[in-house]
Amino acid sequence: MSDDFGKRISIEEVEEGTSFAPKFDEKGLIPVITVEDSTSEILMHGYSNKEALLKTIETNQAHYWSRSRKKIWKKGETSGLNQAIKKILIDDDQDCLIFRVELGGLAASCHVGYKSCFYRSLEGKNELIFTETEKVFDPEEVYEGQDNPTIL
Amino acid sequence: MSDDFGKRISIEEVEEGTSFAPKFDEKGLIPVITVEDSTSEILMHGYSNKEALLKTIETNQAHYWSRSRKKIWKKGETSGLNQAIKKILIDDDQDCLIFRVELGGLAASCHVGYKSCFYRSLEGKNELIFTETEKVFDPEEVYEGQDNPTIL
Repeated sequence: MSDDFGKRISIEEVEEGTSFAPKFDEKGLIPVITVEDSTSEILMHGYSNKEALLKTIETNQAHYWSRSRKKIWKKGETSGLNQAIKKILIDDDQDCLIFRVELGGLAASCHVGYKSCFYRSLEGKNELIFTETEKVFDPEEVYEGQDNPTIL
Repeated sequence: MSDDFGKRISIEEVEEGTSFAPKFDEKGLIPVITVEDSTSEILMHGYSNKEALLKTIETNQAHYWSRSRKKIWKKGETSGLNQAIKKILIDDDQDCLIFRVELGGLAASCHVGYKSCFYRSLEGKNELIFTETEKVFDPEEVYEGQDNPTIL
């Protein structure tokens, strides 16, 4: 699949050019920031790889690489919380993507039940406070029988 | 420094608790999404480590780990483009941070000269189009004599 994306030949071309030449790290991954297109709210931070990115572009549905399950994961395949791609952005050195998406299903994204994964903020040095206080859904119903992806 | 943050003992506590227990990866890093607080615009995606995160919390100024320079980096130390922390958010499994910041200096963030590092979007499968068309500053003036951090 090496021919699917542009070559990273010069810094000038990577930073100032118009060739899509994403950089995958030594594990073949690239981080993805997922944003709700209509509100600009950050929903999650995940990872893609070449195959997941090509599937995302081809189907217009967000696919990720699950580091805990070690497989390609179409967002919403279990939960119905799919993400239709509205726009993909890339950063200066092309080693990070933003997916701007429209949420399907219950219009939430986080496996814990909140709309966004970023539902807590730091207060002082050690304490978290909840910035989202109500869950959108009950994860035990939506993900019944699935392993929790969080790794300690 | 291992006592500076909470322990990651149970998934329930990490996901639903109020103890700040960030997960650093096998390189000791945690990804950071930097957002302009007043506009919610995503400015950059970088990395922190324990020391950089503690400095950020103690000084209220964003510090990062530079993977290309292999050192802690106070944003703005060369360019004046500092970032005052307004809020820090963390995600469900506590392995990613958001810094909500107020921009100092020329009110830009990207070393290429744009306000945000995400100044291009994907058109079709391979082509990038510029979503920011004017640079805020001339990087050759602001970063005179500094190496470009982009790695091919």
